[in-house]
Amino acid sequence: MQLLQQTIEKIHGVNQEMMVIAQERVDALSKPPKSLGKLEALAIQLSGITGELFPNIDKKALIVMAGDHGVCDEGVTTNPQSVTVFQTLSFPKGVTGVCALAKITDAKIVTVDIGVKEDLPTDAGVINKKVKYGTNNMAKGPAMTREEAIKSIEVGIEIATNEINKGIQLLGTGEMGIGNTTPSAAILSVIHNCDPLEVTGFGAGVGDGGIEYKADVIRKAIALNKPNAQDPIDILSKVGGLEIGGMTGVFLAAAANRIPVVVDGFISTIAALLAYKLEPKVKDYLIASHASEEPGAKIAAQILDLEPMLQMNMRLGEGSGAALAFPILDAACSMMKNMATLEESMQLLNP
Amino acid sequence: MQLLQQTIEKIHGVNQEMMVIAQERVDALSKPPKSLGKLEALAIQLSGITGELFPNIDKKALIVMAGDHGVCDEGVTTNPQSVTVFQTLSFPKGVTGVCALAKITDAKIVTVDIGVKEDLPTDAGVINKKVKYGTNNMAKGPAMTREEAIKSIEVGIEIATNEINKGIQLLGTGEMGIGNTTPSAAILSVIHNCDPLEVTGFGAGVGDGGIEYKADVIRKAIALNKPNAQDPIDILSKVGGLEIGGMTGVFLAAAANRIPVVVDGFISTIAALLAYKLEPKVKDYLIASHASEEPGAKIAAQILDLEPMLQMNMRLGEGSGAALAFPILDAACSMMKNMATLEESMQLLNP
Repeated sequence: MQLLQQTIEKIHGVNQEMMVIAQERVDALSKPPKSLGKLEALAIQLSGITGELFPNIDKKALIVMAGDHGVCDEGVTTNPQSVTVFQTLSFPKGVTGVCALAKITDAKIVTVDIGVKEDLPTDAGVINKKVKYGTNNMAKGPAMTREEAIKSIEVGIEIATNEINKGIQLLGTGEMGIGNTTPSAAILSVIHNCDPLEVTGFGAGVGDGGIEYKADVIRKAIALNKPNAQDPIDILSKVGGLEIGGMTGVFLAAAANRIPVVVDGFISTIAALLAYKLEPKVKDYLIASHASEEPGAKIAAQILDLEPMLQMNMRLGEGSGAALAFPILDAACSMMKNMATLEESMQLLNP
Repeated sequence: MQLLQQTIEKIHGVNQEMMVIAQERVDALSKPPKSLGKLEALAIQLSGITGELFPNIDKKALIVMAGDHGVCDEGVTTNPQSVTVFQTLSFPKGVTGVCALAKITDAKIVTVDIGVKEDLPTDAGVINKKVKYGTNNMAKGPAMTREEAIKSIEVGIEIATNEINKGIQLLGTGEMGIGNTTPSAAILSVIHNCDPLEVTGFGAGVGDGGIEYKADVIRKAIALNKPNAQDPIDILSKVGGLEIGGMTGVFLAAAANRIPVVVDGFISTIAALLAYKLEPKVKDYLIASHASEEPGAKIAAQILDLEPMLQMNMRLGEGSGAALAFPILDAACSMMKNMATLEESMQLLNP
């Protein structure tokens, strides 16, 4: 709890003065006003976060948190739980979807076992930070204890802080956990105070009962565990997931260290929402990426004022959308650094 | 006319067999079916265009066509026409918006004077292919002769073919021409058979008369010149622009040489539409980029089945949206090349 508390206390607003300076430069660039749209807003946000007019985000990492879900026992997904371990071991081999997409900007993939069901080989290239061998089945009781929920967030903080200390300038969040759209929808329906059906989707493959049954399982889990909507840690522990808590920690650590952090799809957005509920200033450090196909993703993104930049109809998870947004962030920085103001252009052409 | 005719005759459909093979590989990759959305469709299209299962698009060029517009005399834009020359000379200096965005994938910028009003310095780094010192005012008569329209398309073919012969594997299209949303809207309203107001937007800054006046100028130009909706060259000559014709040529040459070509925003999409009307098979070689803010862009994109991947609220032109899409194409290729199939992953983990 101490690390979590300290991290939250370290989070302050972005550098407003630098944002004013950045806005002035963006407005002075040789182009019709506002014509680079979201790229302009992004550049100004990056200046506010880093305190630099010309931010450097060359060193990038995508943190992938892997965990299993007891609620799979309820048949909410067609995918066997063994896929979690299989994919977790595949990340360090560089052959999964997010690995392929991270290669376009040379981003590093950091794979963390925060709670997969099995013990993984120690030489697999996966960081062992296992809090628990998967969550408990939330349809039968709390997914984890309050202490385990806090521990999962603190693992995320530790991992992200370690990367930042090693020089990483931009973070992205990803996850692997068969069944994890179920706790994500559960968390959102508690926070958004809506029926689970409104925020429940197909996931990577919904079970035989379809989306209605999946929503029903969530409805029962909430009724049984009674998460306190005002207490993000209570929600996480009762109907959440270990990798969700891990990503929440990554968001908190990024904000505490003034590092921009890219949100991926549905599950990642839910983790960001929990971080925001723990400390609203986190919002200023979040950067949207793609529009997930899951219905809850849009609602969660709206709460966080995140407007997706990419419309790719993607729903892979792993942080794939975040990785695909990295070059757009590079573009925003390049706009700031390499585009001339009208005045500079005039000097260049008539020296 | 000979070059145009020869180029059109060289355009054939994409490699369907390779697309089937590519589709099989995409479906075998270790991920839920279809979960990489548009990235999957893009990879399959690139395989169809290039005939390669693992296409190489490392060498990229963005061709920027610059031309002036006589219709500016009607006050359709607030921007002085001198901006065309100013920006055209700025491209080779590497300081405009598209230059900054092209840097993220090391794409080359090829700047072509196809019809700016002034003579440019010969050492400015701009390729001189001037067909005419800007178009005539289409509100008073045809924008150019039929021969000039054909010449403008042939310039585009020549420039693109030259780049392809030098090893360029991916093309993007861009333009610079103050006033050019006016001829673009005119072309579209003729092809789409709609009132100009439906497809007329703010552009880079609409004149004092607003969008209604701008649409009125277009309406008058169409009534006066009576372009034949069945004859793309007639439309281009009567209510078009030189840089629009140049981009049409780039699209045709790309298709003739089986090179993927990225469409930018409104003006570029209109040029693609003309190419499509000259030879419908061109469509298979076109790749969408961003959603332009201009109302006509959406309509033109729909005719061409182009679904934007980026939602950035951009309206700079220059090819900036195409440049920003280049890394997404790299991601599609990386998915194909670097992601493992389920079978390959299993072999990797249990050798």
